Amino acid sequence: MPRFHNLISIQDLTREDIDLILARASEMEEVSVRRSNILKDKIMACLFFEPSTRTRLSFESAMFRLGGNVLGFADVAVSSAGGKGETLADTIKTVERYADVIVIRHPLDGSARVASEFSAIPVINAGSGSEEHPTQALLDLYSIKKMKGKIDGISISLCGDLKYGRTVHSLAMALLHYNVSIRLAAPPQLRMKPAIIEKMLSSGVDVTTVDSVEEGVKDVDVIYMTRIQKERFPDVREYDAVRGKFRLRLEDVSLMKKDAIILHPLPRVDELDPAIDSTPQAKYFDQVAAGVVTRMAILDLILN
Amino acid sequence: MPRFHNLISIQDLTREDIDLILARASEMEEVSVRRSNILKDKIMACLFFEPSTRTRLSFESAMFRLGGNVLGFADVAVSSAGGKGETLADTIKTVERYADVIVIRHPLDGSARVASEFSAIPVINAGSGSEEHPTQALLDLYSIKKMKGKIDGISISLCGDLKYGRTVHSLAMALLHYNVSIRLAAPPQLRMKPAIIEKMLSSGVDVTTVDSVEEGVKDVDVIYMTRIQKERFPDVREYDAVRGKFRLRLEDVSLMKKDAIILHPLPRVDELDPAIDSTPQAKYFDQVAAGVVTRMAILDLILN
Amino acid sequence: MPRFHNLISIQDLTREDIDLILARASEMEEVSVRRSNILKDKIMACLFFEPSTRTRLSFESAMFRLGGNVLGFADVAVSSAGGKGETLADTIKTVERYADVIVIRHPLDGSARVASEFSAIPVINAGSGSEEHPTQALLDLYSIKKMKGKIDGISISLCGDLKYGRTVHSLAMALLHYNVSIRLAAPPQLRMKPAIIEKMLSSGVDVTTVDSVEEGVKDVDVIYMTRIQKERFPDVREYDAVRGKFRLRLEDVSLMKKDAIILHPLPRVDELDPAIDSTPQAKYFDQVAAGVVTRMAILDLILN
Repeated sequence: MPRFHNLISIQDLTREDIDLILARASEMEEVSVRRSNILKDKIMACLFFEPSTRTRLSFESAMFRLGGNVLGFADVAVSSAGGKGETLADTIKTVERYADVIVIRHPLDGSARVASEFSAIPVINAGSGSEEHPTQALLDLYSIKKMKGKIDGISISLCGDLKYGRTVHSLAMALLHYNVSIRLAAPPQLRMKPAIIEKMLSSGVDVTTVDSVEEGVKDVDVIYMTRIQKERFPDVREYDAVRGKFRLRLEDVSLMKKDAIILHPLPRVDELDPAIDSTPQAKYFDQVAAGVVTRMAILDLILN
Repeated sequence: MPRFHNLISIQDLTREDIDLILARASEMEEVSVRRSNILKDKIMACLFFEPSTRTRLSFESAMFRLGGNVLGFADVAVSSAGGKGETLADTIKTVERYADVIVIRHPLDGSARVASEFSAIPVINAGSGSEEHPTQALLDLYSIKKMKGKIDGISISLCGDLKYGRTVHSLAMALLHYNVSIRLAAPPQLRMKPAIIEKMLSSGVDVTTVDSVEEGVKDVDVIYMTRIQKERFPDVREYDAVRGKFRLRLEDVSLMKKDAIILHPLPRVDELDPAIDSTPQAKYFDQVAAGVVTRMAILDLILN
Repeated sequence: MPRFHNLISIQDLTREDIDLILARASEMEEVSVRRSNILKDKIMACLFFEPSTRTRLSFESAMFRLGGNVLGFADVAVSSAGGKGETLADTIKTVERYADVIVIRHPLDGSARVASEFSAIPVINAGSGSEEHPTQALLDLYSIKKMKGKIDGISISLCGDLKYGRTVHSLAMALLHYNVSIRLAAPPQLRMKPAIIEKMLSSGVDVTTVDSVEEGVKDVDVIYMTRIQKERFPDVREYDAVRGKFRLRLEDVSLMKKDAIILHPLPRVDELDPAIDSTPQAKYFDQVAAGVVTRMAILDLILN
């Protein structure tokens, strides 16, 4: 049985690891409803150096459903790291004395890895820079498995901001373990980095590239839409030029397979029309619930 | 037995509903001291889009006294709604997957109602815009009932900012269910909206209007003072003109009935002299404690 | 047996009080690992009017290890005290209805004392102004006792910002109860206030003054380094002139006794070289853990 200490990058996990997490997440569906005390004596520290509603509250909800406690900060301005210029290493070496596991979100690439190197307790990466968001990738996989019944054999289209979106980077890496075909649908300015495409190809994944939403959504089992990451654009004019050019509209749903599912890591801005919410394909809010059980599984595997 | 799902407006409640809540609040006095586990497996999400000490901590204290858990945000800047432009509907459809009940405070009128329309779990309005603050009205009623022994038959003076103060609006609506006489004491710029006065009159409530504090406090059983709501004035010069012109001073207490009680939703600025705190009439801090048991009752009725 | 209600100033405690707290902290070492439910029905309010990671999270971790609940604010901007101009007295008289103990950090000297005078529930000072930080002094004493086996008979050097650093002020006062020799090592602009030195001398403590780090660290059992408190300098140019002139470097460790210990209240900026972290003398992160058990002891003694 694989043992988990940290969860920093989806690339650290084998397929066996991922399958174990997904199986445990499935078992957590029932625990999530009836609640449990298996982490009653555990403390989770949430260190959010970047704002987040979803990921932070999802982890907190997961911890509470397992009976645990939560401390930390949601805003770097109220921490010593903000006010007094403390290094990340010192913050970690302090917080490890207060908690049993650290969940960290940080704007810099590599920050969660650095944190884990200084920490004596497990570290879970809740989003670092523009590269990694492994728990999002795992909940995306779990959503696909739960909603489509399998991962092997599916076709998935990654749509939108494939350049700056850390969730698609982590998801693309996770999908390499499976026998899937991947379509990359992005405007020219926001294409997936060649290094990641190369990894896909060398893993034997079937990859195609298109540059419109319409071509993105046809004939695939899963449409994975993403938000244009305004806050990661070095130049706001670049954002303005792209924004709104890559939107999923209600009429696009009719181009999809009847049993296709639409996922989105959320929050959305205007790339995903709320009129779509009431179509059978819209599964992005069920994906939110899938996030809670996936994080319950991760916390349980790391702490027990 | 009436069933409660949401608590959005005091106007949604019948007298029977209100009386049930007040009766349950009374039972919660003893539970509040010895604590309980009846909400042990429940999670309350606090979504505070406006700053608050009192209401947020009061709800948290109520939840903890019943054994429950709390997650959420106290500051919209740390949420996706602040940082990434998420709509209220999307925030609600996300948070409903994390919690069993949503407590929301929001600067816009109608926001809590909108939230409840999108939510699959119960929503409690903890203050929306300048119109509604139903849990405050319920704790005000509970304070009156506890401290005066009854609500029917009392005379109450609503004093101060009757135009922008959402607590007096909700309280006035709640009082319509009872056989009370109401005095409205406000400076001319801050008088109660005619629409609300009309509702009072058509409900058969005895209403009189005065424009000084002195006339406001004489001969009534309950003096309900309110803060001038600086943050709701469209023009700060209007605030400066009114501010400090409508203050309750220690000498005014001698004009009151010996067994009158002074309530105030707090926080106060300078409309209520701290020298009054030590008079027997001052009950506004006991009112704070009444808020905890009232919110325990509401959470219990909604979640059990 | 002494009874504790508030903990405002280290100067309020007798040696017997302090020894009792340190003994209880020692017993909490084991409880901290296995966790407990002795404060299961208690609520701690954290009112942080100044940013802090360490002290707030340390108290929260202590409370959770004893089974209790925590509410409050980490940022004065989200409270009524920030947004609506509420007085400290009113905030306290409100929060005392929500919790069983108040932990307060505030930028003004005397604020915690004022809070305790208005509060019906116990108040713990978690740092007020530039003068007092009694729980830090207690955890410093506990660290010394745990790591050196005793307090009586040791020699300690207080180094760095002895003028603005509230932790050294509280520690110096606490050491007066013990038979110790104290070296004060500070740049001329940041020397200990004469009033405190006078108290030391009149208590019979052996005090010497030096003005370099090198002289500060030789031959003593304990080196207590402090951060230059940038945020307390009235003039930033004064800070710039001093900053970096009083740093502990790796080579200074070779001047120390082999079994000396280096403590630091943290956070550090550049006065304590991270290269020192891996020397046997570096004990400042173990001191963080000592803080949790010391605060567990304080909460237990005050609430049980």
